[in-house]
Amino acid sequence: MINSKLPKIWYGGDYNPEQWEKDIWDEDVRMFKLAGIDVATLNVFSWALNQPDEETYDFTILDEQIDRLYKNGIYTCLATSTAAHPAWMAKKYPDVLRVDYQGRKRKFGGRHNSCPNSPTYRKYAERMADRLGERYSDHPGVLIWHVNNEYGGYCYCDNCATSFRKWLQKKYNHLDNVNKAWNTRFWGHTFYDWDEIVPPNELSEEWGGSSTAFQGISLDYRIFQSDSLLDCFKLERDVLKKHNPHIPVTTNLMGTYRELDYFKWGKEMDVVSWDNYPAYDTPVSLTAMRHDLMRGLKSGQPFMLMEQTPSQQNWQPYNSLKRPGVMRLWSYQAVARGADTVMFFQLRRSVGACEKYHGAVIEHVGHENTRVFRETAELGKELSQLSDRLLDSRLDAKVAIVFDWENRWATELSSGPSKALDYVKEVHNYYAALYEQNIPVDMVGVDEDLSEYDIVIAPVLYMVKPGYAKKLEKFVENGGTFVTTFFSGIVNEHDLVTLGGYPGELRNLLGIWVEEIDALPPENKNEIVVKNEVGKLKGSYECSLLFDIIHSEGAEVLAEYGSDFYANTPVVTSNQFGKGKALYVGTVPDKEFLSDFLSTICEEKGVSPLLETPKGVEVTEREKDGRVYLFVMNHNSMEVQVNVGEATDLLTGERVAGTISINGHGVMILEK
Amino acid sequence: MINSKLPKIWYGGDYNPEQWEKDIWDEDVRMFKLAGIDVATLNVFSWALNQPDEETYDFTILDEQIDRLYKNGIYTCLATSTAAHPAWMAKKYPDVLRVDYQGRKRKFGGRHNSCPNSPTYRKYAERMADRLGERYSDHPGVLIWHVNNEYGGYCYCDNCATSFRKWLQKKYNHLDNVNKAWNTRFWGHTFYDWDEIVPPNELSEEWGGSSTAFQGISLDYRIFQSDSLLDCFKLERDVLKKHNPHIPVTTNLMGTYRELDYFKWGKEMDVVSWDNYPAYDTPVSLTAMRHDLMRGLKSGQPFMLMEQTPSQQNWQPYNSLKRPGVMRLWSYQAVARGADTVMFFQLRRSVGACEKYHGAVIEHVGHENTRVFRETAELGKELSQLSDRLLDSRLDAKVAIVFDWENRWATELSSGPSKALDYVKEVHNYYAALYEQNIPVDMVGVDEDLSEYDIVIAPVLYMVKPGYAKKLEKFVENGGTFVTTFFSGIVNEHDLVTLGGYPGELRNLLGIWVEEIDALPPENKNEIVVKNEVGKLKGSYECSLLFDIIHSEGAEVLAEYGSDFYANTPVVTSNQFGKGKALYVGTVPDKEFLSDFLSTICEEKGVSPLLETPKGVEVTEREKDGRVYLFVMNHNSMEVQVNVGEATDLLTGERVAGTISINGHGVMILEK
Amino acid sequence: MINSKLPKIWYGGDYNPEQWEKDIWDEDVRMFKLAGIDVATLNVFSWALNQPDEETYDFTILDEQIDRLYKNGIYTCLATSTAAHPAWMAKKYPDVLRVDYQGRKRKFGGRHNSCPNSPTYRKYAERMADRLGERYSDHPGVLIWHVNNEYGGYCYCDNCATSFRKWLQKKYNHLDNVNKAWNTRFWGHTFYDWDEIVPPNELSEEWGGSSTAFQGISLDYRIFQSDSLLDCFKLERDVLKKHNPHIPVTTNLMGTYRELDYFKWGKEMDVVSWDNYPAYDTPVSLTAMRHDLMRGLKSGQPFMLMEQTPSQQNWQPYNSLKRPGVMRLWSYQAVARGADTVMFFQLRRSVGACEKYHGAVIEHVGHENTRVFRETAELGKELSQLSDRLLDSRLDAKVAIVFDWENRWATELSSGPSKALDYVKEVHNYYAALYEQNIPVDMVGVDEDLSEYDIVIAPVLYMVKPGYAKKLEKFVENGGTFVTTFFSGIVNEHDLVTLGGYPGELRNLLGIWVEEIDALPPENKNEIVVKNEVGKLKGSYECSLLFDIIHSEGAEVLAEYGSDFYANTPVVTSNQFGKGKALYVGTVPDKEFLSDFLSTICEEKGVSPLLETPKGVEVTEREKDGRVYLFVMNHNSMEVQVNVGEATDLLTGERVAGTISINGHGVMILEK
Repeated sequence: MINSKLPKIWYGGDYNPEQWEKDIWDEDVRMFKLAGIDVATLNVFSWALNQPDEETYDFTILDEQIDRLYKNGIYTCLATSTAAHPAWMAKKYPDVLRVDYQGRKRKFGGRHNSCPNSPTYRKYAERMADRLGERYSDHPGVLIWHVNNEYGGYCYCDNCATSFRKWLQKKYNHLDNVNKAWNTRFWGHTFYDWDEIVPPNELSEEWGGSSTAFQGISLDYRIFQSDSLLDCFKLERDVLKKHNPHIPVTTNLMGTYRELDYFKWGKEMDVVSWDNYPAYDTPVSLTAMRHDLMRGLKSGQPFMLMEQTPSQQNWQPYNSLKRPGVMRLWSYQAVARGADTVMFFQLRRSVGACEKYHGAVIEHVGHENTRVFRETAELGKELSQLSDRLLDSRLDAKVAIVFDWENRWATELSSGPSKALDYVKEVHNYYAALYEQNIPVDMVGVDEDLSEYDIVIAPVLYMVKPGYAKKLEKFVENGGTFVTTFFSGIVNEHDLVTLGGYPGELRNLLGIWVEEIDALPPENKNEIVVKNEVGKLKGSYECSLLFDIIHSEGAEVLAEYGSDFYANTPVVTSNQFGKGKALYVGTVPDKEFLSDFLSTICEEKGVSPLLETPKGVEVTEREKDGRVYLFVMNHNSMEVQVNVGEATDLLTGERVAGTISINGHGVMILEK
Repeated sequence: MINSKLPKIWYGGDYNPEQWEKDIWDEDVRMFKLAGIDVATLNVFSWALNQPDEETYDFTILDEQIDRLYKNGIYTCLATSTAAHPAWMAKKYPDVLRVDYQGRKRKFGGRHNSCPNSPTYRKYAERMADRLGERYSDHPGVLIWHVNNEYGGYCYCDNCATSFRKWLQKKYNHLDNVNKAWNTRFWGHTFYDWDEIVPPNELSEEWGGSSTAFQGISLDYRIFQSDSLLDCFKLERDVLKKHNPHIPVTTNLMGTYRELDYFKWGKEMDVVSWDNYPAYDTPVSLTAMRHDLMRGLKSGQPFMLMEQTPSQQNWQPYNSLKRPGVMRLWSYQAVARGADTVMFFQLRRSVGACEKYHGAVIEHVGHENTRVFRETAELGKELSQLSDRLLDSRLDAKVAIVFDWENRWATELSSGPSKALDYVKEVHNYYAALYEQNIPVDMVGVDEDLSEYDIVIAPVLYMVKPGYAKKLEKFVENGGTFVTTFFSGIVNEHDLVTLGGYPGELRNLLGIWVEEIDALPPENKNEIVVKNEVGKLKGSYECSLLFDIIHSEGAEVLAEYGSDFYANTPVVTSNQFGKGKALYVGTVPDKEFLSDFLSTICEEKGVSPLLETPKGVEVTEREKDGRVYLFVMNHNSMEVQVNVGEATDLLTGERVAGTISINGHGVMILEK
Repeated sequence: MINSKLPKIWYGGDYNPEQWEKDIWDEDVRMFKLAGIDVATLNVFSWALNQPDEETYDFTILDEQIDRLYKNGIYTCLATSTAAHPAWMAKKYPDVLRVDYQGRKRKFGGRHNSCPNSPTYRKYAERMADRLGERYSDHPGVLIWHVNNEYGGYCYCDNCATSFRKWLQKKYNHLDNVNKAWNTRFWGHTFYDWDEIVPPNELSEEWGGSSTAFQGISLDYRIFQSDSLLDCFKLERDVLKKHNPHIPVTTNLMGTYRELDYFKWGKEMDVVSWDNYPAYDTPVSLTAMRHDLMRGLKSGQPFMLMEQTPSQQNWQPYNSLKRPGVMRLWSYQAVARGADTVMFFQLRRSVGACEKYHGAVIEHVGHENTRVFRETAELGKELSQLSDRLLDSRLDAKVAIVFDWENRWATELSSGPSKALDYVKEVHNYYAALYEQNIPVDMVGVDEDLSEYDIVIAPVLYMVKPGYAKKLEKFVENGGTFVTTFFSGIVNEHDLVTLGGYPGELRNLLGIWVEEIDALPPENKNEIVVKNEVGKLKGSYECSLLFDIIHSEGAEVLAEYGSDFYANTPVVTSNQFGKGKALYVGTVPDKEFLSDFLSTICEEKGVSPLLETPKGVEVTEREKDGRVYLFVMNHNSMEVQVNVGEATDLLTGERVAGTISINGHGVMILEK
């Protein structure tokens, strides 16, 4: 349990009473109670308020808020306020300001604005955490620490340059090792002194955000910046822990956010929390994948849904309302995939500045007679009824999909073979095919133990880190099924090619050699022609973008290309290896292929769907103490029929059996 | 009359003899006379010529030009030459150079290049105006002062930062008021010292030109920069007036130009003038709207058409020729909507630099045997015949459309609900529906008296300034019809939301509450289903982009949505209020709806079309001393038939009656 | 012959052994021999290696490489390594770093990174060339000097500003001449001191890369920057020649690369070399045109194909493989159009950094059992068989197409009439029509003697340099046929309009006056209606974009517009002038028109196709010592039949006669 003070699914969200006059505070509490809200995230952006100048700290308002809420039965998720430095600090100590990707020293403004290697920022951020830890660590209303907010973005200032050189010295010891890792003999970039190294941005090695002349330095800089921000997090965490080691510490992550290696972050956090903001056109399977990824950061441990909007966002191009029932549906989707909290940004909608058109529990109209409030209050009531029954329950998956940020960065930084290659999209293609069949998946990092899985899928495993090939071989030897794709096994952890033939370290396991990789514009299609029908896999499918030219070195050829000069050569292969097998998909296949391919593989391994459902119905299972909770979620706007077997409806307490109806956007939680 | 020295529609344009050798000057005059040209705008870009260094002023060429033209019956519109500072000044006093939106200090080059808060620029611009005023104020050939040229653009330099802080101190008195107006508690942006405030650009709060983290500061900076440039104008105007208060002073504006609040500018000018440059794909109704807007800046007072091209532009992506007759047609369109001058850029086409492919009365070929010259000369003859008959005549409209630059900036700066929202486009949608029915419209600012109008339309009246809701209520109470739309009544003059329910201060007047605003991508359509047929309004129409979810609080529901979860809820309402009514359109309707809706409203108020005409025929009326002049303009390339009643054709002197033919691109001016 | 040490078509490419451990070097040589490779380009990016600090030079590795290769029968194309300065130099002497178009001082990184006017760069580049010249000029293995690499890009730093002013002083003598040439009276830009002139970039006169407020300064800056880089080339060349005047000197150019005026460069090089990198969607006729252009730089002298990829590139959006046979086909295309070398980038594929996915003779797999290597080795064998038979043979063309970089820059910098105008595309349109008919073409600069040609085509001859109109008149007087198009004859060498009527200095020759130029969006079409059928020219064709309104002043009207207000006015004219004629095409015609038009003109002049072939078959002829070699190249993937007459197949030695088959992507070299 995240914190046993509140043994239920926490319900609440970001609350900024400091933006309001006092007369509204009582009204807030009245409405929170009406909505069943029991947790409020305070102090997210109050640095300037709490520390009006270099010497003065003033927590009067914060004291009052925490007490007042606690007296009314509402707990505090306490932020450290270091996500946006005060204007006076920027004026007095410009080192807190970042230099951007274009090489420009920024002025005061915006958010995520502090340089992570600024001595001033680190000093005052740590000091603020210290003051807060000292003051509130033992407050009975405080449930958890929320450090900073949505860490992100990179800096390219001189302090970062200096820190980068130190970081490199620690990582590489000798400059020779740097030159080798970055292959600086290419284009005569050899460094003879650490000071010659400058951060890679538009003034030096990079352009356009993810294009670079030297993948090595660009990759290292991403790792360094992610680490620098993580150091900032650890700095605050450690000082907070000093005051009271029992209060858990988190910071809110952002799903598949590009800039930070969240698997490293997860290890440093007591509990993972994240902010779920699907756009109007985000597939619901991608949201599901992000939940699973966040759960995977700490190997399946339940996480917090720290933020979602009650209805509308403001920063999308088109900010559609969540249709009636959808906020509840998506809240349960989070819970169904491992969340033990349901929290909003925000509890009261701000009156000015750039988020005033972002939805809130209390809208600008200010009263409870709104659709959004009613839906919030209804969900609040349900969550109270659920009590602690779901808390700490776990999901069980026999299929793992590998996700790795460094690999992602490396594929994005690659010059060639195709600009159309999108790592997250390719991973999601595989995820979605399983999602649609209600087959549970764990999203795992490369450090994860694989022994409990039957199937491991690693789309575009371009970078193979030290030891990982061996780990995969052992997994397959022991009977596992491994699936990977085109553009895998190409480079090591420095983005240096593994010489001797693609897919490099995976060649032995896969029993193939990839001689060439053709890359064509999206409109050019080829076909995957199945050689011998197996399971659902038969006939031919469409494929595009990248086309490996494959030689079998022992692997069975499951399918061949249908056209072009490599027609009738292998495109999908399967290699028996020990007790298991290793499959390779040498192109970007269409949806139908992935559906048939993966269901055939799962069937072979005895991995079955949780439930057979109509299209658009999502199913997951959480389990605790031998009790199994089945979540059935209808993403269609129309009613559907689902055969659920025999179970108890957790929300109504009624017994259900056989085929039942679920309303459009409806949810059932069934105890089997 | 602008200046009684030339009691007719002035005909001429920009003339830059200083770019040419003397031998061409006599030829110019010969051709001007052939073309009926009687006014030349001189000295627009001659600062470097007139002031070759800091100490020296030399007006030899200008003296010669004004005299020579005057001797030949051609008057001078005299520019002050301060639109582009000399290179020597930029070199010696870099404070005249702007810092751009990207935060870069500019070097010498381009146009509109002076910082409006540069002490050097202000000093020398004022001094130049003083010298010119002293020298030419009493010259019999000088008709009017033309200060600077097409003022525009913003600067973000340190001088502007300092001036901005002073401007804020004057506007807000205390920093607390700034913090409150900008809601700086959001994201912890509280300022404790004026010096902490920096201009909002890509280095601080803004990005992409119209995106901002803080609407408050961005809005104030726009007002400040518009005011700064206006201060520059006033500086020159005042010193010119000192020499001779009887010479009118203007500067040329640019229609719906974004950066300047022209309603403020209009108040400071003796006569409004503007430059009309429709692109190849500008609807003719938008040009009409811009003329009406320019006329509205001084409450209907006739204005100057300062610039238009005789045929071709050069800075559009595709610079199409004006088809035969179109230059004449569009010149009369200006006159028909209130212009008392017809002037060109330019009289002779330049031989080099970036405007050499911009059309001119005298083309590069240099002689009069061109289509363009012939058309120019024919129009010159007609304008001579018209003499002073149309001068100072007025247009009379019973319908006003509200246009407000601060409101426009606020909607553009808004983060959410939809990036597809375009203020000018929405205003034009309403304008065009009336334009196509030949119903006269005044474009009015928010300071305009409304009592003379029957109908006031304020599309997207997002920002309601102090007192304006009361003004509208009074207008309706007294029997007026008021129309507004979605995203109205939301914020006050600081872009702070009016709490308590949308549409805020307009809620009482409109008799509705808008609970939610849905925003969908453009391809998502809904329907406006009319409840009870009234006038032309019946059946159903298409709508898109934004969809208010409306509760009637007394208003009659005229139409409902046809689909989505808000099907059968109000989309168009009408509220009886005192003797009048207030209508609300909660979405972006299609053209057909606006046509039927507005013609129904006009009919109810007895506002009739000036004439029933075929599509593509524009009609206006100017009136003076009891005489009514009807302009009938055929924008079609084919001949049309129009029933004009009985009248005298002002250009031929002939009587016409009943249905007559008008040639493709033809114009008739009829005295009734 | 480029160098008689190696009297055959050189075969090899870029080789970077310094990027590899020594153990791989022997393997390289073994494989080079297998592939028939006899030349390696060394030392391209080894500055940092050869000069590890300011004082130290160390050529150990280079010594070893040149010797080792030479001992194995492989010659060296020796680069000077000055294309990328060392990191230590950037750190110690920041003047070597460029300031970019956005006005930003760059840091160390990327390529093409040295300021051409940096004193440090010039000093050390010259010194490096001196050291290399001293050391290797007399090495028996050294065939040619390869200075720098792919010179390109511009700099806008203060050193460039100073040099630009000096360059201007030399060109114009007096500032008055600059003011006149740039027409600075426009917008009051008059300069009173040389120091007031600043480089034109986004901080001053330009934006978006090719938009400018003053064409004059922008044009001069392009000439200046191209000259500055050329000065760098000459500096190295001269010092190399000092050591041994008999070793030829080249640098690798890039076809239709925008930034450098290659006709000036060609004059300074002993032999032209270039890098041929067609994108996946480059028409094969455009590659052909680039070969012809490179041949034209030195009036037909054979050139070097310095770089091409064996199969794949890496920096295109989609990097498709060269299909089987295509590398050979395109290699022979180069030879067929004048190349006396076939060279690759690169011999061994790099293991890291941004070109590791660029193809190479030795791929990452490292062995010879690849499709790419086999094709390379087969071609190597053929080139050995060909021996010196083709060396120094010449192509003979009766048609010349004029290409001029300054004219290109001027059209690109022009503001108006149409952004859709693309000089290279327009030139290619005419080229492609002749290419498809197997009619040989020379691409010539404006300095080229025209007397040997029957037909000269100058599409979009916007800028007419001093004397060029006379040259064209003389050519036509003597019987030549001259063809030009819309937007020709407009300006002089300063981009100042030739007054008195378009097409200016060409008006007399063409016998027409162009009164107006209409510019319409691409979707607007008109028709070219032929008046009297002549040759293949008949009926009507489509045209678009630009439409000259033409008056014949003696020219025969061949075709008229079909619609719009200029329907039935001339669009294509032909003017008898002396013994020849001058034709004018006043619009952008469709492909069919150009095909019929140009074949009619060629037929009239007795210029015949080399061979009648099916579509997609390219034919050229090289001639030496009375022997004629016919290249027949099938760009189709399917086999075709071609009637080749009687000849000997140079590759098989067999006699062929009549209609023969050529495989898909096949090539035949026939001696007639």
